[in-house]
Amino acid sequence: MKYAIGIDYGTQSARAELLNITTKKVEAIVEEFYPHGVMSEALPSGVLLGKDWAIQDGEDYYTMAIACVVGLLEQAKIDPADVIGIGIDTTACTMIPLGPDLEPISSNPKFKDNPNAHVKLWKHHAAQKHANSLNRIAKERGEAFLECYGGKISSEWTIPKIMQVAEEAPEIYKEVSSFADIADWLVYKLTGNLYKNNVTTGYKTIWSETSGFPSKEFFKALNPLMEHVVEEKLSEKILRIGQCAGHVTPDFSALTGLTQKTAVAVPHTDAGVVPITLGMGKTGQMVVSIGTSTCHFLLSDILKHVPGICGVIKDGAVPGYYAYEAGQTAVGDSFSWFIENFVSEELQREAKNQGVSLFRLLGQKAALLSPGESGLVALDWFNGNRSILVNSDLSSVIVGLTIHTRIEEVYRAILESTAFGTRKIIENFREHGIEVTELHACGGIPKKDAFMMQMYADVCDIEVSVSDEPLAASYGSAMLGAVAAGEAAGGFKDVHAAQDALSLRESNAFTPNPRNVAAYDELYKIYSKLHDEFSTDNSVLYTLKSLRDTAKA
Amino acid sequence: MKYAIGIDYGTQSARAELLNITTKKVEAIVEEFYPHGVMSEALPSGVLLGKDWAIQDGEDYYTMAIACVVGLLEQAKIDPADVIGIGIDTTACTMIPLGPDLEPISSNPKFKDNPNAHVKLWKHHAAQKHANSLNRIAKERGEAFLECYGGKISSEWTIPKIMQVAEEAPEIYKEVSSFADIADWLVYKLTGNLYKNNVTTGYKTIWSETSGFPSKEFFKALNPLMEHVVEEKLSEKILRIGQCAGHVTPDFSALTGLTQKTAVAVPHTDAGVVPITLGMGKTGQMVVSIGTSTCHFLLSDILKHVPGICGVIKDGAVPGYYAYEAGQTAVGDSFSWFIENFVSEELQREAKNQGVSLFRLLGQKAALLSPGESGLVALDWFNGNRSILVNSDLSSVIVGLTIHTRIEEVYRAILESTAFGTRKIIENFREHGIEVTELHACGGIPKKDAFMMQMYADVCDIEVSVSDEPLAASYGSAMLGAVAAGEAAGGFKDVHAAQDALSLRESNAFTPNPRNVAAYDELYKIYSKLHDEFSTDNSVLYTLKSLRDTAKA
Repeated sequence: MKYAIGIDYGTQSARAELLNITTKKVEAIVEEFYPHGVMSEALPSGVLLGKDWAIQDGEDYYTMAIACVVGLLEQAKIDPADVIGIGIDTTACTMIPLGPDLEPISSNPKFKDNPNAHVKLWKHHAAQKHANSLNRIAKERGEAFLECYGGKISSEWTIPKIMQVAEEAPEIYKEVSSFADIADWLVYKLTGNLYKNNVTTGYKTIWSETSGFPSKEFFKALNPLMEHVVEEKLSEKILRIGQCAGHVTPDFSALTGLTQKTAVAVPHTDAGVVPITLGMGKTGQMVVSIGTSTCHFLLSDILKHVPGICGVIKDGAVPGYYAYEAGQTAVGDSFSWFIENFVSEELQREAKNQGVSLFRLLGQKAALLSPGESGLVALDWFNGNRSILVNSDLSSVIVGLTIHTRIEEVYRAILESTAFGTRKIIENFREHGIEVTELHACGGIPKKDAFMMQMYADVCDIEVSVSDEPLAASYGSAMLGAVAAGEAAGGFKDVHAAQDALSLRESNAFTPNPRNVAAYDELYKIYSKLHDEFSTDNSVLYTLKSLRDTAKA
Repeated sequence: MKYAIGIDYGTQSARAELLNITTKKVEAIVEEFYPHGVMSEALPSGVLLGKDWAIQDGEDYYTMAIACVVGLLEQAKIDPADVIGIGIDTTACTMIPLGPDLEPISSNPKFKDNPNAHVKLWKHHAAQKHANSLNRIAKERGEAFLECYGGKISSEWTIPKIMQVAEEAPEIYKEVSSFADIADWLVYKLTGNLYKNNVTTGYKTIWSETSGFPSKEFFKALNPLMEHVVEEKLSEKILRIGQCAGHVTPDFSALTGLTQKTAVAVPHTDAGVVPITLGMGKTGQMVVSIGTSTCHFLLSDILKHVPGICGVIKDGAVPGYYAYEAGQTAVGDSFSWFIENFVSEELQREAKNQGVSLFRLLGQKAALLSPGESGLVALDWFNGNRSILVNSDLSSVIVGLTIHTRIEEVYRAILESTAFGTRKIIENFREHGIEVTELHACGGIPKKDAFMMQMYADVCDIEVSVSDEPLAASYGSAMLGAVAAGEAAGGFKDVHAAQDALSLRESNAFTPNPRNVAAYDELYKIYSKLHDEFSTDNSVLYTLKSLRDTAKA
């Protein structure tokens, strides 16, 4: 029996699993929480953080990696020598500034009380003004890379986060030897080798295989300090998903019991690894990961510029394919918002009496309606629009309300809005020559909500396959660990071979119901009309936002 | 001391008062409920009613008149001979079919189980298809009267209700001697004289002083049976507000104790009488009566065709002025809808803990916001639009929702939408050459909700005066009773004299706050844009309604 370990770092915790690659059985699962959590108000020393900060302690990541491996081995009671590989995935883009010793620069006593010395979590939004400035400068300079990123770089990505360090803490910037992706640093801690992975470098650090990073002149325009940021602080060799980054160091071996023969994979992102888990390997396959927000990964064998997407990179999800990423900012978030704010006491009582959640109760009531029966259509812009409009200033619209509208009708309209948003993303790909032939759903919501998955099938007129694997990300990372180990060690020669042997079958498929497809076609026309009208340059939504900002100021 | 009685018939009950016209003191108040209530599902015999029916028992009205008068005299312990006049107002248009004996035709055993024999309450909407047919025929024939009624006759009015009888129960139609306004029939019961009052005849029965009723040809086109409906069943003499309809009959005197010298006024409508109560008598004065829905009465000394209003008639509210009527279908109704359906358990608890209503609690929270701070704008079309679009197929739109939107923000946006709707009505009058110089608010909401009245003042940029008289309608009817009695009997020579002596002072005035006026101007631009865009011929709201009707069918 051979085994591989996958560790999936989320926002609140890391979940790890020990996968038996001979039997496909998950032998052990552990979850470890960040000792310092997410810091959004103050550092442990009491130093206050500004608005929209979200930082972490870099050491936490390594501590948790050790605890995960130890925990898995203890649980499974196997011979550690049989663990042939480890794979890691993390949230993205989560960036760690490293000192000259390649340790977190926050461990330098000089800097430990400076917020800019810490890990900036993906959802750190305090670099928004730097992102705005970057986008303005890139546009003025006519930087070609913009169109690969749907026209805009997000404040969540690497370069704005670096700009913030350079501007607010130049003394730290100067001493940083690398602004590393957190996953790449973890791999360094396990192997002693610091590389960059092609996925976060491509999607988040404005790099592409064909044109590399932007020019010195561009970086100098962002901040004179940054002129040589690429050579000085982003210079690691870039490896690809499916490659081996090295083997476990004596230290990590001593701390965990793993042998130094254990291979460590080039790390992936938590959303991007799932297509590997699910066995994707054909052009036109889309994986839609539906949770608080939704990520879409589309595999294709051709590269085109598609406006309004988050990005496209070679081998960004599964080796051998371009992976196009798109997204919707508020999906589960909009359902929660509605349920937490707008559900009457009567309904709360009914849910309690039935012993079901409000989501379940409202879903059941909503499911009794036919498409169109609510008389409502909503836009899914409750937290702006990530794709295909890439505009965080947009907000939502609900149309068709009357004094007879019932709460489950509004709830259903919000569910439907997210399905319409996914259809809009699919159609946008098709209109730009990228085919979408399969839809695979994963994430927290799909396996719990058959009604919603049928709705997605009907709205998008496409069969929707659903995986009920709760730990799809760590499973995929374990697969990458087995690939890193290679065939000779009992692993696999490449990702495709690992997928043939290990990828998870999807247990449910939802087939479009022709009658509902026709009804939703009509509603989607209304969605599209609202979508286009409320996103014009003179949309009232911008006026409303600016009036709101003025009123709050 | 001289006294007058006013009886105000609402949908659920009649409220009556005994007014001391020497001291202006209300000496007694009684409320009487309809013994048979509003029948919307079945007759007492078990005969089922169709969708949208709302009928009543005609005898109830007379029984309640007796009970009201008896109750007032018992309470006040005055000499009945000092009651010099009675005035009555009712909901409109509430129509009663009378037999050859001028009693309700439903008292004929042949017809008592036929729904069409009964009183059709104002909110009986089962004649909608007759109204549609009437509007179509009138448009085809180019009937000039349409433009006096904002282009459309409502299903709530007299002629569609008569058409329903003619079509569904021709045997009843043939035996009816008069399709009387309920108020006119009540006056007949008190005096023995059956007249028509100029207000409901003008606003609701397609009559005007200058051109009379529509032609025989028109009525024949509606239904051949109706060719001679005017001469046969609508032929009573038309008296005006402020006139005397007669004196109490020996029967009513015996039943109540009033003397036969007591004068009975030409009756008014419940909304239309309030301008008399409040002492209105100048061109440009608007009274806005805000409850579940809102009625606007505007006095003017000029007659113009104003599209989108409900109607305009000479002496329709206060003698000597044209009274323009406009309205909003869902005002308090939309607040109740929202609170009943969308308020979270937490808020319910908070209201209970504070011992206040949810309306109060949400109002308090909403009042803490500045104009524009919610980032929301709504249309006030939660039950269609009465003015200025006259379109019941419209529904509401809420724009600007995000996952950070709080419930009080939505609530405030709905309140604001009704203020914007009233501003739209005011501007429509002004654009068509009818000045609006004063705004007087009455009804259930204004006296309870200072925040909302300030909002109306700010949105409409006009001072809003508020009456806190809870029984403004019966007070006005009592005034008309004193006018009917005449000066010689201790009453008044005309309505203006009665107003000089008796009209109620308004206790509160809300002055526009210039800063809020400016902020609301911006929001109103957005409201207007949505108003215009969502009411075009290809509005998505029509598509949504038709999809909803299809889905429900």
